[in-house]
Amino acid sequence: MTTSPPEPGRLTIGLDGSMAGASGNYIKRLGDMSGVYRDAQAYAQALTEHGEDRVVYTVQEHRNVTDDGALIIGTSTLLPGKIGDEFAVTRGHLHARPNRAELYHCLSGTGVMLLETLDGRSRAVPLTAGEAVHVPGHWVHRSVNTGDESFVTLFCYPADAGQDYELIQQAGGMATLVVADGPDGWTTRPNPDHGGYRHPAAT
Amino acid sequence: MTTSPPEPGRLTIGLDGSMAGASGNYIKRLGDMSGVYRDAQAYAQALTEHGEDRVVYTVQEHRNVTDDGALIIGTSTLLPGKIGDEFAVTRGHLHARPNRAELYHCLSGTGVMLLETLDGRSRAVPLTAGEAVHVPGHWVHRSVNTGDESFVTLFCYPADAGQDYELIQQAGGMATLVVADGPDGWTTRPNPDHGGYRHPAAT
Repeated sequence: MTTSPPEPGRLTIGLDGSMAGASGNYIKRLGDMSGVYRDAQAYAQALTEHGEDRVVYTVQEHRNVTDDGALIIGTSTLLPGKIGDEFAVTRGHLHARPNRAELYHCLSGTGVMLLETLDGRSRAVPLTAGEAVHVPGHWVHRSVNTGDESFVTLFCYPADAGQDYELIQQAGGMATLVVADGPDGWTTRPNPDHGGYRHPAAT
Repeated sequence: MTTSPPEPGRLTIGLDGSMAGASGNYIKRLGDMSGVYRDAQAYAQALTEHGEDRVVYTVQEHRNVTDDGALIIGTSTLLPGKIGDEFAVTRGHLHARPNRAELYHCLSGTGVMLLETLDGRSRAVPLTAGEAVHVPGHWVHRSVNTGDESFVTLFCYPADAGQDYELIQQAGGMATLVVADGPDGWTTRPNPDHGGYRHPAAT
């Protein structure tokens, strides 16, 4: 490694989440979101209305080496919408190495970073262009789009972090729901299905 | 750690490098830049003209824990100017743990990220608002302001990276200078004082 590090990554990042120079990307579709929203009937109705292939969020990212000092840099673009009264969300995760932190810097749109600790703290941090959240390790986190346009964030986190996506599912969903409150507002409400998080192996 | 991670950091980041919610900051002044520029006479003249207290760049940052998965997030605001025909620069560094990577995302202004490997590769990556560079580990790097206004970048890097600032000084400066080329342009020129980098202890 010391004699031949990779070339610097040159990225052009649009406020719409476009990322020229990205090394990879993935797309999540409505059909991938089974079990994520509390209102199963509203989710089934959305599938009927929009089809399972409807894009719900996209991720562009740049990574090079998997060295323990390496980073992954990217953008997340979460389309607007509601399933029942729940706003559109990403699946959410705890890092597989739970002490890994992450930056989310909002580039455009309006949303919330929903954050929860395994022992019951819950925070909903509003984000709009220019606002950022520094997610420390040991916080489960998910993006929520509370607006009418795409909610776009730039993210940066250690390349060896990994994602534990099952934790939320096993807990019956995150402890808090971000739901509509009046025609343009949002609020949080406890999720009665949430049964507490298991504690993953410490890292 | 697993039972009481710190609160998420809530940051409001201005295009001018302001950062509400920062946990710290520092200021570099003209008097701190002794030995950084090649033209010692031009530097002495700038000191006489502007005084040693003149601000040349400022850094705002947010850090919480020093866990090995932690990050430092901040902004760097490098004021415009030239010393002789060299554009304004930050001191530059290799990470003390050399394999630590870093993101620089330009928020405003116009500049260059100058990057060099210990074995002689050199890259000058132009940056303006929306452009970013993913600096892999093992690259010495420095910001250069090639414009007329402040050159502002958002950065994110592992909290345990550290900075080796002496490496560049011991090498007689970075291998490449970023200098004026016509009334509004810039170009690179080899630094004849550069004698090669020592190889720091591998990490």
